[in-house]
Amino acid sequence: MQRLGNSKVARLATADAQGRPHIVPIVFALEGNTLYFAVDAKPKKTRDLKRLKNIAANPAVSVLVDRYENDWTKLWWVRADGTARVVAEIAEAERAIDLLAHKYEQHRRERPAGPVVAVHLDRVTGWSATHLTR
Amino acid sequence: MQRLGNSKVARLATADAQGRPHIVPIVFALEGNTLYFAVDAKPKKTRDLKRLKNIAANPAVSVLVDRYENDWTKLWWVRADGTARVVAEIAEAERAIDLLAHKYEQHRRERPAGPVVAVHLDRVTGWSATHLTR
Repeated sequence: MQRLGNSKVARLATADAQGRPHIVPIVFALEGNTLYFAVDAKPKKTRDLKRLKNIAANPAVSVLVDRYENDWTKLWWVRADGTARVVAEIAEAERAIDLLAHKYEQHRRERPAGPVVAVHLDRVTGWSATHLTR
Repeated sequence: MQRLGNSKVARLATADAQGRPHIVPIVFALEGNTLYFAVDAKPKKTRDLKRLKNIAANPAVSVLVDRYENDWTKLWWVRADGTARVVAEIAEAERAIDLLAHKYEQHRRERPAGPVVAVHLDRVTGWSATHLTR
């Protein structure tokens, strides 16, 4: 969980009602077993909102943080599988944006105005090359 | 496509028959509109083969490469949505492993012995922060 929380970027996989997966990079903040991300304030084309449409149709998501190095003995990843919802309560959305602003100076300068998504982490799994015997 | 091909790591999203997404980091090689990755030779626990089970149940996949920097004006990503299949033909699998060995010295030292997966890229989309007017 520490590697997850300390990472600046994660990749979010959603799937539509037909089960077609979709993947985007996200910045996020973690609070307990909940991961928050926001859709940023800039105008978006329809395809950029696909993550929100997918979550409305199918709340199952998978979030990955990982480290890549040319030295493969330093690789690791952490995956969090969970259930996503768009945050409806204003107080919770504000708290999530505070967490994002605390973590990212860009979000301090310009607070995201778009919807906030909360992902309840149902299962966290990880792998590290250094745990392998070699 | 150049950013995709030049990247050393990508993230692969698959989904199971129930549409639950799953995400893992992969190393890969690109040949035309086909992306190849191999399951490596080390013994694997069942969960590590979930990508293969998902592909058997649902061949739709999404692959992402991206760059994260603390300076968000340097961000970019490329996403390739495609259709995956386990490579059955030995000649094609050998050629894919040659491509992987050419790109990664680790695969030259130890050629992956596991199944090779081919992803036909149906749609490639990209985004770059520097294309935004600011």
